[in-house]
Amino acid sequence: MFENIKAVTAKESYHLIRFENDYTRGVHPKILDRLVETNAEQTSGYGTDSYCASAAAIIKNLCEAPHADVHFLVGGTQTNLTIIASILRPHEAVIAPSTGHIATSETGAIEATGHKVVTIPTETGKITAEQIRAVVDVPENVHAAKPGLIFISQSTEFGGVYTKEELVAIKAVATEFELPLFVDGARLGYALASEACDVTLSGMAQICDVFYIGGTKVGALFGEAVVIVNEQLKRDFRYIMKQRGGLLAKGRLLGVQFEAFFKDGLYFEVAAHGVSMAMQIKKALVDAGISLAYPAVTNQLFIEFTHDQFEKLSEKYVFAPWVKGEKTIIVRLCTDWSTRECDVQQLIEAIKAL
Amino acid sequence: MFENIKAVTAKESYHLIRFENDYTRGVHPKILDRLVETNAEQTSGYGTDSYCASAAAIIKNLCEAPHADVHFLVGGTQTNLTIIASILRPHEAVIAPSTGHIATSETGAIEATGHKVVTIPTETGKITAEQIRAVVDVPENVHAAKPGLIFISQSTEFGGVYTKEELVAIKAVATEFELPLFVDGARLGYALASEACDVTLSGMAQICDVFYIGGTKVGALFGEAVVIVNEQLKRDFRYIMKQRGGLLAKGRLLGVQFEAFFKDGLYFEVAAHGVSMAMQIKKALVDAGISLAYPAVTNQLFIEFTHDQFEKLSEKYVFAPWVKGEKTIIVRLCTDWSTRECDVQQLIEAIKAL
Amino acid sequence: MFENIKAVTAKESYHLIRFENDYTRGVHPKILDRLVETNAEQTSGYGTDSYCASAAAIIKNLCEAPHADVHFLVGGTQTNLTIIASILRPHEAVIAPSTGHIATSETGAIEATGHKVVTIPTETGKITAEQIRAVVDVPENVHAAKPGLIFISQSTEFGGVYTKEELVAIKAVATEFELPLFVDGARLGYALASEACDVTLSGMAQICDVFYIGGTKVGALFGEAVVIVNEQLKRDFRYIMKQRGGLLAKGRLLGVQFEAFFKDGLYFEVAAHGVSMAMQIKKALVDAGISLAYPAVTNQLFIEFTHDQFEKLSEKYVFAPWVKGEKTIIVRLCTDWSTRECDVQQLIEAIKAL
Amino acid sequence: MFENIKAVTAKESYHLIRFENDYTRGVHPKILDRLVETNAEQTSGYGTDSYCASAAAIIKNLCEAPHADVHFLVGGTQTNLTIIASILRPHEAVIAPSTGHIATSETGAIEATGHKVVTIPTETGKITAEQIRAVVDVPENVHAAKPGLIFISQSTEFGGVYTKEELVAIKAVATEFELPLFVDGARLGYALASEACDVTLSGMAQICDVFYIGGTKVGALFGEAVVIVNEQLKRDFRYIMKQRGGLLAKGRLLGVQFEAFFKDGLYFEVAAHGVSMAMQIKKALVDAGISLAYPAVTNQLFIEFTHDQFEKLSEKYVFAPWVKGEKTIIVRLCTDWSTRECDVQQLIEAIKAL
Repeated sequence: MFENIKAVTAKESYHLIRFENDYTRGVHPKILDRLVETNAEQTSGYGTDSYCASAAAIIKNLCEAPHADVHFLVGGTQTNLTIIASILRPHEAVIAPSTGHIATSETGAIEATGHKVVTIPTETGKITAEQIRAVVDVPENVHAAKPGLIFISQSTEFGGVYTKEELVAIKAVATEFELPLFVDGARLGYALASEACDVTLSGMAQICDVFYIGGTKVGALFGEAVVIVNEQLKRDFRYIMKQRGGLLAKGRLLGVQFEAFFKDGLYFEVAAHGVSMAMQIKKALVDAGISLAYPAVTNQLFIEFTHDQFEKLSEKYVFAPWVKGEKTIIVRLCTDWSTRECDVQQLIEAIKAL
Repeated sequence: MFENIKAVTAKESYHLIRFENDYTRGVHPKILDRLVETNAEQTSGYGTDSYCASAAAIIKNLCEAPHADVHFLVGGTQTNLTIIASILRPHEAVIAPSTGHIATSETGAIEATGHKVVTIPTETGKITAEQIRAVVDVPENVHAAKPGLIFISQSTEFGGVYTKEELVAIKAVATEFELPLFVDGARLGYALASEACDVTLSGMAQICDVFYIGGTKVGALFGEAVVIVNEQLKRDFRYIMKQRGGLLAKGRLLGVQFEAFFKDGLYFEVAAHGVSMAMQIKKALVDAGISLAYPAVTNQLFIEFTHDQFEKLSEKYVFAPWVKGEKTIIVRLCTDWSTRECDVQQLIEAIKAL
Repeated sequence: MFENIKAVTAKESYHLIRFENDYTRGVHPKILDRLVETNAEQTSGYGTDSYCASAAAIIKNLCEAPHADVHFLVGGTQTNLTIIASILRPHEAVIAPSTGHIATSETGAIEATGHKVVTIPTETGKITAEQIRAVVDVPENVHAAKPGLIFISQSTEFGGVYTKEELVAIKAVATEFELPLFVDGARLGYALASEACDVTLSGMAQICDVFYIGGTKVGALFGEAVVIVNEQLKRDFRYIMKQRGGLLAKGRLLGVQFEAFFKDGLYFEVAAHGVSMAMQIKKALVDAGISLAYPAVTNQLFIEFTHDQFEKLSEKYVFAPWVKGEKTIIVRLCTDWSTRECDVQQLIEAIKAL
Repeated sequence: MFENIKAVTAKESYHLIRFENDYTRGVHPKILDRLVETNAEQTSGYGTDSYCASAAAIIKNLCEAPHADVHFLVGGTQTNLTIIASILRPHEAVIAPSTGHIATSETGAIEATGHKVVTIPTETGKITAEQIRAVVDVPENVHAAKPGLIFISQSTEFGGVYTKEELVAIKAVATEFELPLFVDGARLGYALASEACDVTLSGMAQICDVFYIGGTKVGALFGEAVVIVNEQLKRDFRYIMKQRGGLLAKGRLLGVQFEAFFKDGLYFEVAAHGVSMAMQIKKALVDAGISLAYPAVTNQLFIEFTHDQFEKLSEKYVFAPWVKGEKTIIVRLCTDWSTRECDVQQLIEAIKAL
């Protein structure tokens, strides 16, 4: 499994249609308009401006979490490492799925803050309350890192979602062992838009101790909105943001974007578009007898092509190679807020023609 | 000395004219145009796109450093901690002025990467080659952190600049003790535009082992362009960027901005505007018999007002309080790329009327 | 798997005979004599004394590695974290068996120095050159921690040993991928004394880039002798020792002990005794039809008792519980330099009587 | 200022009498006897044995702190870094005198755990409550590391002591700003034995949140006994000890030593001897008109010799050079638990003869 290897080496080819990830384009036009409109205004720095305040208020309202703290950071790895560093004592470890972004895709960013990532093996990207229990319900042992936090992703790195029941069960184990539950929501929009997911934004706030609402992959230029629900996790969070290089000087850029996302439901709308595009492609794949490696319920499809199929489609479409086998190759295909219907139709035709 | 305290607590007041820092507005219109124009394009992620490649090529050309590596990061603290972490071994310290951004304004970000910041006392923000020599020319002592890197800022946190002669002298000591020289250029534009500064961009590249060209404070939405000249400091820099949360998913945003900055000299032009505005205000202050705390040669003025003067001006203008004395208060006033001439004229009239 | 849980909770019971680990007694009498003899002497501190110099010279001679650096540290975890921190850059990971001490038994000590431990699954405690190749022979990927070092233990945490052929094969992969090979020798004495092991001390020095010769578990009060063979790993090691709290003020205590260990072969002699005691017990177990969980070739036996057998023996003997099953319990039994033959005979009788 | 430079470079010369530090000899004979007596006993590991329990109980009793936690570590740097890492959150700094051991003599060990050491300038080694207040009574500022802990040494690195009144005043400021007070007691014995010091061991426990009782410099082979009085600082301390490499396998070595130290007052007795020896030398120096750089009230004298005087005495005596001036050299002279009266008499004669 490796992300973006193709992207890194590919020449920029403007005739290609890119499905390799969900951050190939800039920003949703409505958000861009707001950035343009507010560009000449003067505001105070570092997220102390009125746009950040407004965006935070709207998010707390949608979360039905009036006492939550909301902070805005630029990117996912930055957000993960800042949250985790702010919570754990030195000897504490974060428990995560073996497929979790912090375990596989952040260059040891969590370890660089001093903490072990204890992984729970998973094929699907999801872990269960019982798997977590097996890891945390162990005798006191000063020779091992102590579980200090549970990390999962909604949606997962493989496009799956946790149901409300699953999340509640995980939270119950977390509570039993006095561990906060932190949900990486880099793709939360696509999870909330999935038919397989019965959780709402306020449901997330009810269940999680801390989570974030991903902007980068759902149509922002960049940005992740951290929602800290648990009172005990709030103290001095902005210090840690600054220390980790995550306090944006022109913080209002984050406020403007998240205000535009949430004041009229734009975030949910564009996420739904992304999922809808993926579901159309999924149907075409299934109809063509092509396998999907994981349950495809959000904006990510993991498709098992023959090498022939892959090469043929690669003339026009870019996917992210995931696992190369002898006869087949699994690739990741992402749709997103910006995926064009005409491109999807073209791709569907191409799949039919394989 | 404390930055942005006023900003943090101030209500957003739209009748105010803000001089408290150099990041109160969004982005230069010409750069904004480019962001709008390129918004719908698809590119690969994490800085592997053609805009980053183009911007890097232009910068290397201007630096007359064809073999340099150029990387783009989002903010100053992030850039400082990433560069320093990439260079030092665990027991090595960075030598910096006591007023250096890494020593005073980054919440222990460098220490959080494991390294001591050894400070050289300075009243002015600048340090000399001889001061550095006194710190690094010491007997081997395994009980003390070992000097591993020299850090200075151009322009300094107090608005001063190093001349070419001063930089060359510092570099000579650095070379003698086998220490790389790293220059924080968060406000490099304003330094290059200063009459007091005889160094060019290519001069910087000749003298420094690594430096960066600040975008955030010179008219970008955000962004710092790191130029690594010393071959030995290049290896695996992108890994460290990723690990520290500094590899922007939509990296092309940085490429687009720095391409726009440097393809036609826009960066130099807007920096010159910022300095020019500051020099006009400086003249008014001097004429009014108001003292400046440090030599004012770039876009930052440190002004010693009486409390009466400060209160009067604060009705309309925002400055950053720096040092409160019994009879006077020293404040920082910043101009920048976006400072309006009419606002400067108004302020000058107000100063005359004090 | 958990170490010393029994030990931690057990009351001190002087009628018990302890086989739970290999550090239950103080120090070998011959070494104690030397500590007593030298006690009143004045020496310089921090390992700069003549005893350390002498011990280092003897060890280099035995290793046939005249250019090696030898340093003395107090304990195993300290030694592992110091060596690893001294070698790796921030984004680099250490590759280790999933059973490795640094992965399971050091409370995240390596992660606390900022580095990921990438584990290779193993049932036996050993890993192969091919397993290592599979982990390190991967495309450049800035999103993943980069392999920077290979860690194995000789003997392993489960009592196994690597043969010369196996070590040479591992070193070949290490060399191919420009990775140093670091061997944790906390129980190196018992490995060298094993019939299953055809490597000598000088063989270790030929193959490894850095390794250590464990004293704590082989009859010292405490102490591990680090042998750095690879020139590139030597620089400033004492700084890192000091920084990590590992530079003992009265360093001569380490010099005196290791000099006593190696000037006349005492180390090899006592290690051989420990292994011999284990082999006698092993024979009794096999004769009694009791299973051993891993190949038992050094001083550690992992014995699968029925619960009945375990309880019966526990009245007089202390073992370390390892894995509790429904019908059986696997325990660790350690002999060491101090194991008394009479105690072993008693235990053998007890095993026969089960 | 640099420690042990002389020691590091000096050849071992047995005709020399060493006063360069307080750890030139092994261990007090009474403690050595106990180590010999208990050597063959089997105990459980990692400080879970009965000797550690007994030593802890005696210390808690002497401290009149029945609810304190007592832990045993090997050395001072290790103890400092373990305590500080266990207390601070990532963005928090420790406040220390500029002369503090953690600031000057630990190779950035505290920074290596991620924390800034904010120093308060001092000429004497001591800092006052008012100096601390000036540093911690500042506006909330997320751009600066947040004070999280106060560190002082008793006795100081320059041989001074804090009186009860001074400590109580410091503790009052600490309490006011919700900062724990941590006292480095590497030389606590010599402080308690000083006529200038009116604090007892139980007084220390009443005033401090955490402190340690140094063994290494007062006659142990090695060892520091940490006393954690503040309930909130106790949690999981042993995990941090293990993680930092400070959990000694044969922990009973620490228990045996501290039991021997405190069961009959040996610690106080030998510390008093050390101070008495220093006071005799001090008198001779004063009589000879030779200056002392700091108030000399414990076992350390900082003596200002002419270069002639220094060279003459150096033929027979070893001191630690501290500050080399043009005409004079300041050296550190340490007495300790093992200083022989005959050596002191000889030295006094030599001083008289200068």
